Amino acid sequence: MTRIISEKEFETAIEELKEFLRIPSVSADSRYRSDVLRCAEYVAERLTAIGFPTVQKMTTDGFPVVYAECCQAPGKPTILFYGHYDVQPPDPLGLWLSGPFDPDVRDGYLYARGVSDDKGQVYCHFKAFELLFKHHKKLPVNIKILIEGEEEIGSPSLLPFLKRNKDLFRADAAVVSDTPMFSATQPSVCYSLRGLVYLELTVRTGSGDLHSGQHGGAVPNAIHSLLAVLSKLKDADGRVMVPGFYNDVAVIPLHIREELKTLDFTDPEYQSLIGTYFLQGEEGFSSLERRWFRPTLDINGIYGGYTGEGSKTVIPAAATAKISMRLVANQDPKVITAAFRQYLREIMPKDVRFELKEFSSSYPAATDSHHPIIKAAKEALKKVHHKEAVLTGEGGTIPVVSDFKTLLGIPTVLMGFNLPDDAIHAPNERFKLENFKNGIKSAYHFYNQCAALI
Amino acid sequence: MTRIISEKEFETAIEELKEFLRIPSVSADSRYRSDVLRCAEYVAERLTAIGFPTVQKMTTDGFPVVYAECCQAPGKPTILFYGHYDVQPPDPLGLWLSGPFDPDVRDGYLYARGVSDDKGQVYCHFKAFELLFKHHKKLPVNIKILIEGEEEIGSPSLLPFLKRNKDLFRADAAVVSDTPMFSATQPSVCYSLRGLVYLELTVRTGSGDLHSGQHGGAVPNAIHSLLAVLSKLKDADGRVMVPGFYNDVAVIPLHIREELKTLDFTDPEYQSLIGTYFLQGEEGFSSLERRWFRPTLDINGIYGGYTGEGSKTVIPAAATAKISMRLVANQDPKVITAAFRQYLREIMPKDVRFELKEFSSSYPAATDSHHPIIKAAKEALKKVHHKEAVLTGEGGTIPVVSDFKTLLGIPTVLMGFNLPDDAIHAPNERFKLENFKNGIKSAYHFYNQCAALI
Repeated sequence: MTRIISEKEFETAIEELKEFLRIPSVSADSRYRSDVLRCAEYVAERLTAIGFPTVQKMTTDGFPVVYAECCQAPGKPTILFYGHYDVQPPDPLGLWLSGPFDPDVRDGYLYARGVSDDKGQVYCHFKAFELLFKHHKKLPVNIKILIEGEEEIGSPSLLPFLKRNKDLFRADAAVVSDTPMFSATQPSVCYSLRGLVYLELTVRTGSGDLHSGQHGGAVPNAIHSLLAVLSKLKDADGRVMVPGFYNDVAVIPLHIREELKTLDFTDPEYQSLIGTYFLQGEEGFSSLERRWFRPTLDINGIYGGYTGEGSKTVIPAAATAKISMRLVANQDPKVITAAFRQYLREIMPKDVRFELKEFSSSYPAATDSHHPIIKAAKEALKKVHHKEAVLTGEGGTIPVVSDFKTLLGIPTVLMGFNLPDDAIHAPNERFKLENFKNGIKSAYHFYNQCAALI
Repeated sequence: MTRIISEKEFETAIEELKEFLRIPSVSADSRYRSDVLRCAEYVAERLTAIGFPTVQKMTTDGFPVVYAECCQAPGKPTILFYGHYDVQPPDPLGLWLSGPFDPDVRDGYLYARGVSDDKGQVYCHFKAFELLFKHHKKLPVNIKILIEGEEEIGSPSLLPFLKRNKDLFRADAAVVSDTPMFSATQPSVCYSLRGLVYLELTVRTGSGDLHSGQHGGAVPNAIHSLLAVLSKLKDADGRVMVPGFYNDVAVIPLHIREELKTLDFTDPEYQSLIGTYFLQGEEGFSSLERRWFRPTLDINGIYGGYTGEGSKTVIPAAATAKISMRLVANQDPKVITAAFRQYLREIMPKDVRFELKEFSSSYPAATDSHHPIIKAAKEALKKVHHKEAVLTGEGGTIPVVSDFKTLLGIPTVLMGFNLPDDAIHAPNERFKLENFKNGIKSAYHFYNQCAALI
């Protein structure tokens, strides 16, 4: 096999990426508005330069989406590549060793805001496309590209945009590189993301707070009423007690469970890394299984009564809890929300009034672990790392992946290139140059594999 | 029996009280500092004018205490009369129909800040002393008077002052008129106040909050840990679950329980008055028994995790609850605090770290319901109202009464003259002129009864 990328070509890639990184495309801060728009322009220009016949900046309710396509491989599958050109704010500036928008190479790493999340990873694909064009005059599969500019503010305009342009984004599968590899020595392919239901429960026991001296002992206390409900949400073994909660939960495939055991992951190291005093979770599952492939419930916030300094002798008439449930395939957030609401009615103490607000929900997004797109990613990574890539999940939610699944009906593979300690969203964000190069090569192989496999 | 007070004398009393009320002795607001000091001066002058041979303004760490004594009744008991000359701030000013410091008589009521709490009630005693001096040239018992100027800010200087002047305040019993009658038609004598232990519990499960997507299901959540503890503090029947909590609790005397049943009090009316959606409390006790004579536990505040608007997917590493226990005779706040701390150690989930802060504690203060001082008050009220006064309790804590009990070793009788709807601490505070007159007469009889009974 010929070398995919020469040293000289890689040097050029670094310089091009630096140019991309110098644009401070901070979507959260209106002072950077013109920079974000300039960055969209830059992405469109690069894609044109690389060789895409169709490139356009598309209007959304917020920052533009850059769309490109090259569909000149009849009979071959169509792959949708998603990434984002916006970055997190650089604060706190004082902790950066080099300017966040002044890319700097030190000790084999490139440092800059957005270098891992997501400009560097996006650029792996861009460079792969360029090299594929260069080596073969065409791409091995049909490619559609969607690079958005609002990922770091929760992609508020993306779903309506996708709904309006459903046909344009028709594809067989999607690929995203916006997550890290499992570890520096362990390439990984993520095939499963958890969904989310986020609710807020407020209970009321009266029209106003009461003096705890004058009335204590004879009147209800909204905090106690709330506790009575919350204590029935999760049992001592870590199981969610909402009836039917586990009805649709997909069993973790045995080959996945076996593979997880081979990973370089131990509970004591995990605990020490995240700084908890202990670990706990659902009986019968390992920590990785609990985080990636099992649903759960957490109270994310609680408040009621007097929460200031010192003491106030008050009996609160209202108390609130924010409650979220992480869902896995094949749970439906609508079904879970309805089951939760029904259960709440059953366990709510008599005469207590309550209100349940629904803040957000998103579907879990799991791709069949045997799907060809997963296989393509695994094969690509194996060619680069000379090691089998493991299948992983992500405990969090990436709404765009859910949207691809529910709206476009396509599976997504998450093929991440950066490392877990690359400080994304933090000062001194970095991307290892070796990972940048491997990312380019992996993307190159991936698109070739897609042509071969499907 | 001769008339105690003539119409003319009562008119004078009203004018004198108005003068007292015109001094805006707001202890909480430093802008009124000179007024508070002037009020102390006024009280001292009045007591001298009334006929007390010894009157002095005594220095404390804050506003002065006015002390007076007339101990010229050898062989007779010594009664300590306590009151306060400071008042609550008058805000919100816009809701007053007449100026808070411009006393106004309307429809049989005198309106002004402090008229019920406590200047008017204090003046009942002052006028009674004056009339006793006038009618008999002397007082029937030995009298010591303590009028403080910091009650409305929690009496911060009083306990140290009492400690320094323990001998001066030696007495057989104390009397306080700073609470209302049970109702307009039901005179009452309060013989029991609840004590208080106020704690703050913080639990920690790790060094920092975690992302609920990345880690949810595998890590502890401080809110859940706190709930596990809080749900073991009080059972479904309203009983406090701290072992030994009820060990020292005095049984409510049967004659008190029987008397309570005769009171014009119904649960539906009570519930409607305070605006709760239902009532609940310890099995086997009525609402009045629960509020006055039974100990209880309330969570007064709780917070942890995200408490702002909307949603944040966080697993909190810390959560806090403010917990108070109302105590009754003969519970000891020190013993209860120790028992709580011990129980907490037992029920705290393994590996959860916690901190328990003690904010305040005060002893319950109950006088034997058969004590002569109680009998004296009941007899006095009966003479005025031609109706038996009922024995009541107060669910709240009046620290000075605890201090009298623990520091001076004397019982206190609370003989209140105003009505429950006199709007103390609120705009348009008032005192019914009929109650003012009855208060003067009741105090007059009370001191005579003290001489006869003991």
